[in-house]
Amino acid sequence: MKRISILGSTGSIGQNALDLVRQAPGQYRVVALTGGDNISRLASDAREFGAEIAVTAHENRLAELRDALEGSGIAAAAGRNALNEAAARPADWVLSAIVGAAGLEPGLAALRDGVTLALANKESLVSAGPLLMSAAARSGARILPVDSEHSAIFQALSGENTAAVERVIITASGGAFRDWPLQGLAEATVAEASRHPNWTMGQRITIDSASMFNKALEVIEAREYFGFQPDQIEVLVHPQSLVHALVGFRDGGLMAHVGPHDMRHAIGYALNWPDRLVLPVDRLDLAAAGSLEFFHPDHARYPALGLARQVMEVRGLSGAVFNAAKERALDHFIAGNLRFTDMHGVVAGTLDHLSSEPGLIDAEITLDSVHRLDHLGRIAVDDLVGRKPG
Amino acid sequence: MKRISILGSTGSIGQNALDLVRQAPGQYRVVALTGGDNISRLASDAREFGAEIAVTAHENRLAELRDALEGSGIAAAAGRNALNEAAARPADWVLSAIVGAAGLEPGLAALRDGVTLALANKESLVSAGPLLMSAAARSGARILPVDSEHSAIFQALSGENTAAVERVIITASGGAFRDWPLQGLAEATVAEASRHPNWTMGQRITIDSASMFNKALEVIEAREYFGFQPDQIEVLVHPQSLVHALVGFRDGGLMAHVGPHDMRHAIGYALNWPDRLVLPVDRLDLAAAGSLEFFHPDHARYPALGLARQVMEVRGLSGAVFNAAKERALDHFIAGNLRFTDMHGVVAGTLDHLSSEPGLIDAEITLDSVHRLDHLGRIAVDDLVGRKPG
Repeated sequence: MKRISILGSTGSIGQNALDLVRQAPGQYRVVALTGGDNISRLASDAREFGAEIAVTAHENRLAELRDALEGSGIAAAAGRNALNEAAARPADWVLSAIVGAAGLEPGLAALRDGVTLALANKESLVSAGPLLMSAAARSGARILPVDSEHSAIFQALSGENTAAVERVIITASGGAFRDWPLQGLAEATVAEASRHPNWTMGQRITIDSASMFNKALEVIEAREYFGFQPDQIEVLVHPQSLVHALVGFRDGGLMAHVGPHDMRHAIGYALNWPDRLVLPVDRLDLAAAGSLEFFHPDHARYPALGLARQVMEVRGLSGAVFNAAKERALDHFIAGNLRFTDMHGVVAGTLDHLSSEPGLIDAEITLDSVHRLDHLGRIAVDDLVGRKPG
Repeated sequence: MKRISILGSTGSIGQNALDLVRQAPGQYRVVALTGGDNISRLASDAREFGAEIAVTAHENRLAELRDALEGSGIAAAAGRNALNEAAARPADWVLSAIVGAAGLEPGLAALRDGVTLALANKESLVSAGPLLMSAAARSGARILPVDSEHSAIFQALSGENTAAVERVIITASGGAFRDWPLQGLAEATVAEASRHPNWTMGQRITIDSASMFNKALEVIEAREYFGFQPDQIEVLVHPQSLVHALVGFRDGGLMAHVGPHDMRHAIGYALNWPDRLVLPVDRLDLAAAGSLEFFHPDHARYPALGLARQVMEVRGLSGAVFNAAKERALDHFIAGNLRFTDMHGVVAGTLDHLSSEPGLIDAEITLDSVHRLDHLGRIAVDDLVGRKPG
């Protein structure tokens, strides 16, 4: 039985992973589950799956978690160190589905122990790609991508020589404003930006989809994880979101990954890799899907893609700044302090500002320097906006 | 340097293969070239590529070939035995691009020697799949598919466990009559059936594309080559012909092969396998390609697909009968003895007729029995039509 831990088990990806475990009785043994505020979900999942330990990130919720687990024999713990210890607990497979910069340290903790890390935490690779990849190389651990686009690339590379790769095409739905007139974007409301044309996700990632800040993260992630050169990575708008990515080889052939919108495919692929086991996802009927369209993205509509190129060229800690700045700019947009179209300028301004000062973006990439640049990025955004978001 | 032989070098696939050799100087050494009537092309190619031997299938053309090669030091030979000897000549890679049943014997000769056989001769696998596959298994030789659909499946299976395959989707352009009203098909002329919507090919394969007899061959070929069960193989009409095939796995994901219409990709993939080397084919711009559409084929329009299912279920020598009967029915259509829509009935009638007699379709598959059933299939078609095609 495969021993697995899920960091961020109460979120959407964590819940989908647990659903796969639930539907494959006897195949997996749950070691650790970790969450944040949703103590009742965390405790009931820990009980259902017979976890060894449940951990909340918030120390002030420990008593509540202990109460909820009383009599179950399941250990309860809380706080940053407990989270890192849970991540490093002996297991065959750890899913890091923690949202945001908080996912970096537990991911590194898992990798140091040589555990296979299924990574759904984009921010880790964007902010500290070299740190993660070298930790994996040192311990011989494997990082497996869980984002559908990166899982698609990973699958297309199966059995292939990466030296034969010419280009990679990551698809994007185009988000809520794909078909809006450009001049209307400046007036777009938070509610309008929060309506995804294809599916329901959290508000933040839906807005990041409309601005393509999310796609920008994915492009940077592909560069860090697979080692592709920036000019090898293309983005195409594909409104149907059924082709998740294509890898083009030097013989002119492209291998594409196609499938329905269901994150359980990418999670399950990582969970069972290198095997492909039966997964409870719908089978795609391409004839029923209608036609598949592809467009070059309009960079006036999606300027975040240009920033991704800049970050890929500079590397160093610019990814940490980019990630922090786009998070904070989004906070300001949601708070009503920034127009939709102004997020880009604020992020670009922050990158420029922190790049101009020596010893910041070009410092050595460590956990500390990543946290420092993340912090400085947020402050710089607030300075540019002229206030705090909250 | 890879030593290669090309059987059927003067045809379209052979010429495209030679074009790849021409564009990669110093990579390949041409051992044998073989052809039929086009002696001047055969001789000039043999001279250009410095072949060791050139062979024409027609003994009465030997003197002409000798003359054309005079002073070159290139050996000339003719006839069936010479063809088989050329196929078995020491080489690393043999392309069998001979059209029709004549390709079977030289293909077997190459396999017996353990040479890698790139197979563009569909009829071999359809008529005598088990014979070829067991010859390859005995000598440890590899058969590599050259048809774009089968190359696509082969590529999608790279690094994958075939036990995890759930289904295979082979795409079809839909041919000349894809959008015709059904009731008009009976009156379709040879000229109309010979106009392919997407590209220019030979007349016979273009008509086979309109009737989907060609797709029926490919479906049977996929069954014989990959060992898929009949109900695992689907056909989808895909008018743009850019997605050549998809393989669906039991985890719900599909791997698709996408690329421009250029047979040099599949030929070059087989030529360089397991490497992917740079090939001089256009790179596909999906955004410029417009939308990709997929439809379930209408079995009233393409009844040949139903016959393919029947052949896949029965196996044995029914493939040899099917192939011979559809060839002969096409002869009759071109000669004006059969309506377009009547080809199906004649082939079905032939299959029924020869299946009803014990000891025919269920005989052991040997070179002799394949030739015998091929012969009987053609006679049965003529009987049904009531005359000979010529």
